[in-house]
Amino acid sequence: MRVVDLLTHVRDGEPVAKGDIAALVRGIASGAIPDYQAAAFCMAVYLRGLADDSTVELTLAMRDSGRVINLDDVPGRKVDKHSTGGVGDKISLPLAPLVAACGVPVPMVSGRGLGHTGGTLDKLEAIPGFRVDLSVDRFRELVRQIGLCLIGQTADLAPADKKLYALRDVTATVESIPLITSSILSKKLAEGIDALVLDVKVGRGAFMKDEASARRLATSLVRVGTGAGLQVRALLTRMEEPLGTTIGNALEVRESLAILRGEGPADTTELTLALGAEMLVLGRIAASLAEARTKLEAAQRSGAGLDKFRAVIEAQHGDPRIVDKPALLPTAKQTTVVKASMSGVLSRIDAYALGVAAMRLGAGRSKADDTIDPAVGIELFRRVGDSVRAGDELALIHHNTPAEQAVADTRQAYVIGDEPALQGPLIIDRIE
Amino acid sequence: MRVVDLLTHVRDGEPVAKGDIAALVRGIASGAIPDYQAAAFCMAVYLRGLADDSTVELTLAMRDSGRVINLDDVPGRKVDKHSTGGVGDKISLPLAPLVAACGVPVPMVSGRGLGHTGGTLDKLEAIPGFRVDLSVDRFRELVRQIGLCLIGQTADLAPADKKLYALRDVTATVESIPLITSSILSKKLAEGIDALVLDVKVGRGAFMKDEASARRLATSLVRVGTGAGLQVRALLTRMEEPLGTTIGNALEVRESLAILRGEGPADTTELTLALGAEMLVLGRIAASLAEARTKLEAAQRSGAGLDKFRAVIEAQHGDPRIVDKPALLPTAKQTTVVKASMSGVLSRIDAYALGVAAMRLGAGRSKADDTIDPAVGIELFRRVGDSVRAGDELALIHHNTPAEQAVADTRQAYVIGDEPALQGPLIIDRIE
Repeated sequence: MRVVDLLTHVRDGEPVAKGDIAALVRGIASGAIPDYQAAAFCMAVYLRGLADDSTVELTLAMRDSGRVINLDDVPGRKVDKHSTGGVGDKISLPLAPLVAACGVPVPMVSGRGLGHTGGTLDKLEAIPGFRVDLSVDRFRELVRQIGLCLIGQTADLAPADKKLYALRDVTATVESIPLITSSILSKKLAEGIDALVLDVKVGRGAFMKDEASARRLATSLVRVGTGAGLQVRALLTRMEEPLGTTIGNALEVRESLAILRGEGPADTTELTLALGAEMLVLGRIAASLAEARTKLEAAQRSGAGLDKFRAVIEAQHGDPRIVDKPALLPTAKQTTVVKASMSGVLSRIDAYALGVAAMRLGAGRSKADDTIDPAVGIELFRRVGDSVRAGDELALIHHNTPAEQAVADTRQAYVIGDEPALQGPLIIDRIE
Repeated sequence: MRVVDLLTHVRDGEPVAKGDIAALVRGIASGAIPDYQAAAFCMAVYLRGLADDSTVELTLAMRDSGRVINLDDVPGRKVDKHSTGGVGDKISLPLAPLVAACGVPVPMVSGRGLGHTGGTLDKLEAIPGFRVDLSVDRFRELVRQIGLCLIGQTADLAPADKKLYALRDVTATVESIPLITSSILSKKLAEGIDALVLDVKVGRGAFMKDEASARRLATSLVRVGTGAGLQVRALLTRMEEPLGTTIGNALEVRESLAILRGEGPADTTELTLALGAEMLVLGRIAASLAEARTKLEAAQRSGAGLDKFRAVIEAQHGDPRIVDKPALLPTAKQTTVVKASMSGVLSRIDAYALGVAAMRLGAGRSKADDTIDPAVGIELFRRVGDSVRAGDELALIHHNTPAEQAVADTRQAYVIGDEPALQGPLIIDRIE
């Protein structure tokens, strides 16, 4: 294969010969193909798209650029969940133990947060002692022994994706559906899973701002994932106001515990159950979504989900006492209340603005090497549609640095009007 | 400027802030901006185009990436010609001395041939001793003293273009109108000229295969050139059958001498006069194209054109005796006649195929570091529309290596049928 011929085909939207994309990925991974050709490839794919079969080839080649975890000796169908990222999205934390408690092994390799969205690893690390850097052998052992393990991406999982992602980041080619699809799926396929549930978020607080793009991404993920040999389901879910009642790492662990206890906010609880039901059906533990939901609710009531969370925290060197004593989680030195400046109805709460505000407090990163303060964040007392009176408490800023900016940003993020903006259901659609 | 923001604008076909493209070019030239961002830029421009004002900025920034020759101390308006390249296109050789003989200074920086098209420098170097690597000071001196000088691009003229071109070559982004436009014009602007005539070729033997693309390129060159402060005219000319009666470097020098003597083939003579007339008008030596043509024909008749060619050959260390004794030019050891295998009318002569055949004989390069044999090539005895009988001589191969392949290729390039293919005029249009 001559790279320039491959680039010509992609540039012209023509079919690419079987094997050429795989050769490209191998060359990128080995360094035999220079970055400038990889960059030209990314821009051509961004602007011309890539056929599903080529995207499958890209995905599998990126998976095969590194270690592929073999979980064949773990009984049962291994199922994972991936979210495209939102503000206040802590669903992985209650979901993984709840699903594992119902008998579906959950091998979960997660990422860190960047920009206005948080990352599962950062939330887990708010639990004192919790380690996400376990070896792959230990990961496999924990999935087998306790039914779940939550680690970070190691350097040897899909390294070609890591290389290509870094290049996309500096060449304005991040937001390409085939490239996003192959990036997400290659890493997930390297976990050794059988099935995957995707939470594709739509709205101001999400990566995909409009429903049409999110739907295209969800459809691409399902089609390409299926082509790559996975069972895949996707939920299209709304991300306009923040998810749940907390933004910030330790605060989100608290909310996760509440969800596991069956005492969580309505939206995060609903999303946990909806995604969990898909996982149980894909894991062949339940024959229907309704049956799956019954099992998940039972695991909430019985405390089996909490027990599983306790077990995985202990196995991953965290302090399991936080499960029953959330006060052991890091807390900020100061809290500042944000009050409503006028009376009316909450017509909008800008998830993006609150995500950025929390990031600036130290809950997230503006660049990859920023350090995180696990204690800080924003607690949200009101939701869109609530009536408020001037002086009512809207939110509580947890902070270790001056909070003026965060208070102003938070107040601005709450839009008080005469009536709530029309907002559709949390779960917009289900794609299979 | 953040490069990724610039890439986003170009990618989305949005206007780019003034100064950003210039900053990009400076960064590419200095190495501060990595190749992968330059490659992404090229692919985005290829697929989304670039507005004229940004292409002007790109052109000027590439010009300013290196030395810009100042010819202000040379009296008169300095005018050059550039051709997009064709098979048998030796027009620069008779044109430059003929125009200079009429009083227009011609500072000409040319390129080498690659693939099926030849390069002016290679043709000049077929003249024993001729040197194209003069210093810029000597270049300026000769333009002032004798009214013309013909050299190769030096490393310090538009180095950003050189870098970008090398990148385009390996990223499938060569055939982009804004990138071709800025590449051609930046080098020409660096010569210190006031005006430029462009010969944009269309057809099987040309870079642009169809008239619409060639017209777009010509229009872009005229608009962007004008925006960059040049006076520009473009002729759109046909390149289906080879131009003139020779392909190959020494053979083309002979034909050039014939044109200067007023004894050249009709098509190359016509093109020389047409392009020359534009140059004389742009050089303000003639008030109309008709008047210009009269002057050029007088310079042919009087021998003033030949004298100027003799002078420049001598000044550039070549053997000026070849002007009167073309037999002193290198000759091939062998010649082989190609005869018609059937009777009929020559309906097509494939310029591209003959260009490749000549290249394989050693008259051109398939890669940049191939060496050239100045003596070899193909002489063409018949033109499209000629009646031929089986056994008639069609062409003569001049070769120093076995000629079987060239004979077969040449025979195949001559298509004999019942009637000639409809072929329009040599000069299709004039764009100003």
